[in-house]
Amino acid sequence: MSSSFGHAFRIHTFGESHGGGVGVIIDGVPPRVPLTLEDIQHELDRRRPGQSEIVTPRKEADKAEILSGLIDGQTLGTPIAVVVRNEDQRPGAYDEMAVKYRPSHADYTYDAKFGIRALSGGGRASARETIGRVAGAAVAKKVLDHLCPGIEVLAWVKSIHDLNATVDPLSVTAEQIEGNIVRTGDPAMVEPMIERIKEVRGEGNSVGGVVECVIRGCPPGLGEPVFDKLEAELAKAMLSLPATKGFEIGSGFAGTLLTGKEHNDPFRMVEGKVRTTSNRSGGIQGGISNGENIVFRVAFKPTATIMTSQETVTNTGENTELAGRGRHDACVLPRAVPMVEAMAVLVVCDHLLRQRGQVGGFPAPDA
Amino acid sequence: MSSSFGHAFRIHTFGESHGGGVGVIIDGVPPRVPLTLEDIQHELDRRRPGQSEIVTPRKEADKAEILSGLIDGQTLGTPIAVVVRNEDQRPGAYDEMAVKYRPSHADYTYDAKFGIRALSGGGRASARETIGRVAGAAVAKKVLDHLCPGIEVLAWVKSIHDLNATVDPLSVTAEQIEGNIVRTGDPAMVEPMIERIKEVRGEGNSVGGVVECVIRGCPPGLGEPVFDKLEAELAKAMLSLPATKGFEIGSGFAGTLLTGKEHNDPFRMVEGKVRTTSNRSGGIQGGISNGENIVFRVAFKPTATIMTSQETVTNTGENTELAGRGRHDACVLPRAVPMVEAMAVLVVCDHLLRQRGQVGGFPAPDA
Amino acid sequence: MSSSFGHAFRIHTFGESHGGGVGVIIDGVPPRVPLTLEDIQHELDRRRPGQSEIVTPRKEADKAEILSGLIDGQTLGTPIAVVVRNEDQRPGAYDEMAVKYRPSHADYTYDAKFGIRALSGGGRASARETIGRVAGAAVAKKVLDHLCPGIEVLAWVKSIHDLNATVDPLSVTAEQIEGNIVRTGDPAMVEPMIERIKEVRGEGNSVGGVVECVIRGCPPGLGEPVFDKLEAELAKAMLSLPATKGFEIGSGFAGTLLTGKEHNDPFRMVEGKVRTTSNRSGGIQGGISNGENIVFRVAFKPTATIMTSQETVTNTGENTELAGRGRHDACVLPRAVPMVEAMAVLVVCDHLLRQRGQVGGFPAPDA
Amino acid sequence: MSSSFGHAFRIHTFGESHGGGVGVIIDGVPPRVPLTLEDIQHELDRRRPGQSEIVTPRKEADKAEILSGLIDGQTLGTPIAVVVRNEDQRPGAYDEMAVKYRPSHADYTYDAKFGIRALSGGGRASARETIGRVAGAAVAKKVLDHLCPGIEVLAWVKSIHDLNATVDPLSVTAEQIEGNIVRTGDPAMVEPMIERIKEVRGEGNSVGGVVECVIRGCPPGLGEPVFDKLEAELAKAMLSLPATKGFEIGSGFAGTLLTGKEHNDPFRMVEGKVRTTSNRSGGIQGGISNGENIVFRVAFKPTATIMTSQETVTNTGENTELAGRGRHDACVLPRAVPMVEAMAVLVVCDHLLRQRGQVGGFPAPDA
Repeated sequence: MSSSFGHAFRIHTFGESHGGGVGVIIDGVPPRVPLTLEDIQHELDRRRPGQSEIVTPRKEADKAEILSGLIDGQTLGTPIAVVVRNEDQRPGAYDEMAVKYRPSHADYTYDAKFGIRALSGGGRASARETIGRVAGAAVAKKVLDHLCPGIEVLAWVKSIHDLNATVDPLSVTAEQIEGNIVRTGDPAMVEPMIERIKEVRGEGNSVGGVVECVIRGCPPGLGEPVFDKLEAELAKAMLSLPATKGFEIGSGFAGTLLTGKEHNDPFRMVEGKVRTTSNRSGGIQGGISNGENIVFRVAFKPTATIMTSQETVTNTGENTELAGRGRHDACVLPRAVPMVEAMAVLVVCDHLLRQRGQVGGFPAPDA
Repeated sequence: MSSSFGHAFRIHTFGESHGGGVGVIIDGVPPRVPLTLEDIQHELDRRRPGQSEIVTPRKEADKAEILSGLIDGQTLGTPIAVVVRNEDQRPGAYDEMAVKYRPSHADYTYDAKFGIRALSGGGRASARETIGRVAGAAVAKKVLDHLCPGIEVLAWVKSIHDLNATVDPLSVTAEQIEGNIVRTGDPAMVEPMIERIKEVRGEGNSVGGVVECVIRGCPPGLGEPVFDKLEAELAKAMLSLPATKGFEIGSGFAGTLLTGKEHNDPFRMVEGKVRTTSNRSGGIQGGISNGENIVFRVAFKPTATIMTSQETVTNTGENTELAGRGRHDACVLPRAVPMVEAMAVLVVCDHLLRQRGQVGGFPAPDA
Repeated sequence: MSSSFGHAFRIHTFGESHGGGVGVIIDGVPPRVPLTLEDIQHELDRRRPGQSEIVTPRKEADKAEILSGLIDGQTLGTPIAVVVRNEDQRPGAYDEMAVKYRPSHADYTYDAKFGIRALSGGGRASARETIGRVAGAAVAKKVLDHLCPGIEVLAWVKSIHDLNATVDPLSVTAEQIEGNIVRTGDPAMVEPMIERIKEVRGEGNSVGGVVECVIRGCPPGLGEPVFDKLEAELAKAMLSLPATKGFEIGSGFAGTLLTGKEHNDPFRMVEGKVRTTSNRSGGIQGGISNGENIVFRVAFKPTATIMTSQETVTNTGENTELAGRGRHDACVLPRAVPMVEAMAVLVVCDHLLRQRGQVGGFPAPDA
Repeated sequence: MSSSFGHAFRIHTFGESHGGGVGVIIDGVPPRVPLTLEDIQHELDRRRPGQSEIVTPRKEADKAEILSGLIDGQTLGTPIAVVVRNEDQRPGAYDEMAVKYRPSHADYTYDAKFGIRALSGGGRASARETIGRVAGAAVAKKVLDHLCPGIEVLAWVKSIHDLNATVDPLSVTAEQIEGNIVRTGDPAMVEPMIERIKEVRGEGNSVGGVVECVIRGCPPGLGEPVFDKLEAELAKAMLSLPATKGFEIGSGFAGTLLTGKEHNDPFRMVEGKVRTTSNRSGGIQGGISNGENIVFRVAFKPTATIMTSQETVTNTGENTELAGRGRHDACVLPRAVPMVEAMAVLVVCDHLLRQRGQVGGFPAPDA
């Protein structure tokens, strides 16, 4: 069970959906970075259930507390611990789960791995686990602002089911994304997407989709070949989020339909900087950022919790059926947006510090 | 610069395309595993240039030498070092590269990161770097055979450019794949793919494609939530390979077009085992293997080296053009197959040992 | 700032003497190990201030809370988080510390490292930091009991100032040690040691001493050459404790006065087992446990806090004097005993799981 | 089996005394650091057998080869691989070792751990293993010279058996130490120590001793509390060397005989810098360097190989005797000096890069 992510900037998370709470220790934080509880709470509120009419109706306040590593609004350089108490445990709602494995959830695999599992609420496989990540990333974002101002990480809903948004990664703004409850950057798709979510929810069904993310203003030189290439770290970060099934960067899978002549990004000097005139590389070449926008996409499967009877087995090896009931989140995409941003911010922050450690700056000081 | 991959079973690679050689240290190898030099050489030969008429014509023998960790055909439990000498360095062929950044290669980004780079042959960003990975995986494969017989990792070319192979991950055999120089499992696509590669090569152009991979016989219980989920580790492993642009597992990106009712995998008891009657999960649920086939796909972009003049810049910041010339590999896909397999084997072997360390077996002993 | 210790069994600690609290995340815990809050609280009570008349009179309840990783008295295999709230912060007592560096404390070096520091109570350099270690070790102890019953880790005060205890590592019992407030295993030295501590405390002075520790029942085969040799890991573990100045194992520094003929430990078969007839090796040979008692000693310097005026400088670079006042712990040795035990337990537990991961058991299954 | 040391500056070693060779991969090396093969060979020659009349007479050339990571005398920032071929294997000389465990060697414990071992020459437990460390440290030394000129690491023989050298850590020079084959800094003890070694060798016996080491010019701020305190890392580094039994820093074990008033180091401003007027702390406070000389001592036991018949057991569990014969190194101390320096250099270099990564400089930029 590995609860740690990152090397130089490193988070350790804990917590099940049951039990006292969830949280994170953030280690390797540079000292004297301005930080407030509000910085963290703001990001937690973006991933919180119950924030709009199209996400899970669970009411969880998700109030964060900082236990260490901070003095007078500045980081000490020592580990920062953040704890969020569990409130809405409702163990009674999950009785059936104690014996029946929910299809396409992690009930069976946790049993297969550990021979024991938290019986209520999904345990460690709950989306609640991402609270620690988002809190950690809120600190990472402050570090980026402090050490390398101008880096901006923005994610949005690119598609829900077969509804595709048209969003320009160069120009889309946080306001455009946060200005609608779906968190898509395409005004024309806001209503259709909301309707689709309500529709499948009404049917006790669910949908998935794609989140797209851009990292703007990333300096050239980040990424650690050969195994910790920047895109490899982003891929791992994204596939570690619950419900993800795919990751692609730049031209992605569609890039395999181009020839080399069509795909290569020519270099040109622009305002004294090495730039590419196209960006099929997605801002990373040879595992290292090239100064262009880093653009990637993450596939989220439809939510496994549905309100229909399904075939399954018991933990004692008998075929049975699981009835649908209770609350469910018919589409995780709007809440996945801050999670994707969080993981991207953690990767960039970690690599910024790693690059500073080995080379002294970003890009290399006299490169 | 991170040259290490894995936690319990861990490889450290080194080497540029210039210099004395490339290789790997493999640490954490269980003792008393049968191993011969031939086991390693066999896998290296599969990734070697010049092995057929459709891959790069460079002649490299890639002869491996084992320097440590072995006695009388058995592993000692101590680090195994494998070295492969560089032979065909031809620094003269790359003079232009010393000053001009090749588009969509890593020349510029290595300079931006380090302020220095190997000027000949791509340096550490060369595909030659994967020799160490393949040698490490050859050892890992022997460990799997020893500790958990029956695990089989097979990859094949799923598509080249717009040519798609039809391959059944359940039944495809190593013989079917290795029986043709494209390494696709679909007999009907062998000739069209060979023709396409020859065609684009004749035009000085290049193509990419998709490699698909199956891990059969993987026991339930492997994978370390929440950050080292099995699919997250596979995603990182694959995106760390040169020229990769995407990873998807199970239903992947196409899965976002399904509803939850369509996507969920029902559980049934089959011969006393918990099985799923479909496999859109791709063999992993909640980051942990569920005993079904693990199926994933990796996108490789078209080779960046093309035989056409391209716009680029010099390392002193002037616009220029780079003429096409020399040898080039018009399609990396056939040689990417053993690389994808190698990375998958490394991930599975590492997680097998991690699971044994924490839990004692796979699946959990009395689960 | 590295808050993590261990590889397979891994703890991450946090917390300053000021702020909300201190604690630990314990990761890599095997599943289904019996564990209660009382197991942890019991060990915390042994290191707690105010437990007897010869330790610091601060009253801290040090009440632990488990936030995750546990269900129905069994570990889940997921991270266990333990939090202890800070109560007695008394920032007012430390005003002078905000500007004057206390001699032989960490005030100056934290400023030199981070350019900022917690101004009250020693911050992260406070002995309070060890709470997380002790809580983590309480869990490790349960894991040892579960996986490898019979391992016993006992430490005692070997010397205080120039007073030396005579204790037999083979036969000393926990009752003998815990039966006196000094925690020495030599009844004859209890009163002299108590008197010495009271005496120096009366003078506003302090004393140090040596803690000796034995690990009994450790199976052969633990330790990971060449860098993670068992004695190397123990040395690091002990020198990471506050106020430590030395570590020696087996014959230690005195062993340099023997010749090889005098020092070597002959092997003999005893009841079917390979044993040594002497133990100058201290239970470890070549970095790996040999099945004999592991015996080592740790030097603790006299407490830096004394009640005398001392020469020092301010954080703005002026010579000054620091007056002695307030509470002080004239001798840390009695409370160091559970800390030494805790670090030893953490090392053994980590290596037990690492050995199981690589080799499958302890000693090697068919060795 | 852990062959890796360091975090930001990291070495991975391999190799037994039998087999093709030994060596190291050095990862995390800053780019553009001047480095030649001669830099490495020079340090290897200092640890080489056969260099003088008082060390083991084995003739090993220990010729290093650099395989990667270097171009035109500058580091590339990529892994540097160094290989040294084995020459003098003489497997015949060790036949008896195949069945009889040598007392106080690692033969038995390697068997207990792995169920297999290299039968000739000590395998991985051979002193030959330190070649990779010394080569790695030669690179680290160049990094220190480049990034933080003025750091000087010097070790010397402090004692052999009961012969004690008087050496001033502040003023002793490399020339004084290297100017005699014992490598002690006390001219008066050179001849007595040489005589003692020859004397015990003549008796087929062996002696141990203490190596002392100073790190001069280390900037304040290095060390990563709470587990990677600088003294904890040094302790681990030293105890990972073969034949070591103890480590102490500053006042060490003798410091336990002082009171706090006697032990504390007063601070004074000297030439605008915070200095201590005594150095019982040994240059480290709270786990972080304070700018004073870092002084520590390492105990080496008498060599286990002696020319006398000894009681032992066979690997099949029978009591027997092992006859003394062959070559032996009656005292490892002269050759231990460069090994101690090597490990100290590796620790300082790693922490320099870690500090630069987290904080940006040493000491903290505007501290």
